[in-house]
Amino acid sequence: MRVNAYAAPSAGEPLAATTIERRDVGARDVLIEIEYAGICHSDIHTVNGDWGPQPFPVVPGHEIVGRVTEVGAEVTRHRVGDRVGVGCMVGSCGECDSCRRGDEQYCARGMVGTYAATDRDGTTTQGGYSTHVVVDADFVLSVPEGMDPAATAPLLCAGITMYAPLRRWGAGAGKKVAIVGLGGLGHMGVKIAHALGAEVTVLSQSLKKQEDGLRLGADHYFATSDPGTFDALAGTFDLIVNTVSAAVDISAYLGLLAVDGTLVNVGAPPEPLPVNAMALISGRRSFAGSMIGGIALTQEMLDFCAEHGIVSEVEVIRADEVNEAYERVLASDVRYRFVIDTSTLG
Amino acid sequence: MRVNAYAAPSAGEPLAATTIERRDVGARDVLIEIEYAGICHSDIHTVNGDWGPQPFPVVPGHEIVGRVTEVGAEVTRHRVGDRVGVGCMVGSCGECDSCRRGDEQYCARGMVGTYAATDRDGTTTQGGYSTHVVVDADFVLSVPEGMDPAATAPLLCAGITMYAPLRRWGAGAGKKVAIVGLGGLGHMGVKIAHALGAEVTVLSQSLKKQEDGLRLGADHYFATSDPGTFDALAGTFDLIVNTVSAAVDISAYLGLLAVDGTLVNVGAPPEPLPVNAMALISGRRSFAGSMIGGIALTQEMLDFCAEHGIVSEVEVIRADEVNEAYERVLASDVRYRFVIDTSTLG
Repeated sequence: MRVNAYAAPSAGEPLAATTIERRDVGARDVLIEIEYAGICHSDIHTVNGDWGPQPFPVVPGHEIVGRVTEVGAEVTRHRVGDRVGVGCMVGSCGECDSCRRGDEQYCARGMVGTYAATDRDGTTTQGGYSTHVVVDADFVLSVPEGMDPAATAPLLCAGITMYAPLRRWGAGAGKKVAIVGLGGLGHMGVKIAHALGAEVTVLSQSLKKQEDGLRLGADHYFATSDPGTFDALAGTFDLIVNTVSAAVDISAYLGLLAVDGTLVNVGAPPEPLPVNAMALISGRRSFAGSMIGGIALTQEMLDFCAEHGIVSEVEVIRADEVNEAYERVLASDVRYRFVIDTSTLG
Repeated sequence: MRVNAYAAPSAGEPLAATTIERRDVGARDVLIEIEYAGICHSDIHTVNGDWGPQPFPVVPGHEIVGRVTEVGAEVTRHRVGDRVGVGCMVGSCGECDSCRRGDEQYCARGMVGTYAATDRDGTTTQGGYSTHVVVDADFVLSVPEGMDPAATAPLLCAGITMYAPLRRWGAGAGKKVAIVGLGGLGHMGVKIAHALGAEVTVLSQSLKKQEDGLRLGADHYFATSDPGTFDALAGTFDLIVNTVSAAVDISAYLGLLAVDGTLVNVGAPPEPLPVNAMALISGRRSFAGSMIGGIALTQEMLDFCAEHGIVSEVEVIRADEVNEAYERVLASDVRYRFVIDTSTLG
């Protein structure tokens, strides 16, 4: 099956319209007619070659929402006509400890990424900037009816990336949670942490987005460019989720944690982060990392978001606006996520 | 009450015999005739001025075992003749969240250290290299009968420093635990982790102490000077407790953790440690810190050690051998803890 797509022909080249082949629908596969595909910062890193050589041409996109148009003979989980989603992974070994625990993202043999990865059949995966995709039914999520499909797409990566650490480290009533950075990830973190019942603080470079932050559910908003912030909030938080991939002064943020507090990075700058061990020892604090979330947890997140009326704040664009959108993402000029209307792929 | 002691007269000067004043026994105090005092590496750091200016003369020693010789009117917890211990702290505010939770070591107003600290009455605390000490009964531990008093002294610091993270991060049956460094702390970690039922690996600079390590309870022993160790053990451990205060390559050790594993530092080098955030994110790993333990947990540790026949491996010395012992500690020439027989203070 030949389908329209938008692909990066080589590292750093602008994306352009093309066609790609999708595999036949196997017994355990689902064919999805894609409606919307979110633009994640990691799409840009990948096609720019920031993360090493890639199997070009690359069709990015791992925040996918669409409708099921065909299912394989053994598929019982999804039916034709269902609205579904696909996130950052489309396969894993299914047999290792992590897979059996539902942590497919930490598969010992490596999860199969939704694009630019080698699938189990040896072909290269291609992502959601496309009209259709064929995916193993076990990696296809159900999107609850009533959710706006465009604004739901970013939940499949940004949403679960934030939901997973917030749940794991106990964000909820009586807990003080800080979200560092109010971008595509951060704005989801604020909404979810607020819905979980936590007292939410945004720590942002400046106060530029303060009004937005409070509207999205934050109780407090502080500028990290103001050194007074680090004195005022010393020892405050039970949990800090850092969405900033650039190198920040981690030891300064560790100082904002209460005893037993945890700072979780969901992004990784290329250079190592200097950590003051005394900041950990003096309060039994932890510096941790978290990467997306397993399939069952992603479904839980979608159901939670549906129940609480949570979606992403999005700007819907045509496929031919992708390159311009990439520029704007790099300039932090988006509130808060671009989503491609894939019907514009023709 | 004037008592004999060994004190550092100023930073970097050899310790020498002297006398110091102990306060009158208050209503809630216990007077202890000290039998043994362990030598902890931090005693040396303190008197050398490595940790900033100190209120010289300083009598070090926070691994204290002795007999109760007098109790205040309100003391019910200890009786004259009891064998007791004192560790790293002799006071805390008793009112903050940490104190109420039994984490007096993280007291919001600062715990009162056993020596070189300002006590609640404004005086400077003096430690265990002395014949007697007066301590608030709430900070005095009961030493179970039958434990060798000299070999028990190091449990009050080294023992609880290892027991606390091993318990908190779930060392036990079915868990793979690594202890980095086989010194005063590390050898206690091996014994305790083994008694808790964990599979224990020692990661030491060389294989010099391998025989000791296996005898103390380790199941495996690897040299970290062999780069092959880091390949062979990648992704192995649920918990690593790092006892080495010098800067080690933390990111390399993080690579030895299984998914959800935690690396806990119990020592802090002065310089920040470079941490590769991807090593955390790719396995939901944590880098944490832990500092001694609360009073209730310290009592639990002593009872646990009594039940499992665990004490420290010690070399008992006379008080006038302290300076030589310090040299040998700095040269890692002790298996595994020096303990001063305080009856030699005359």
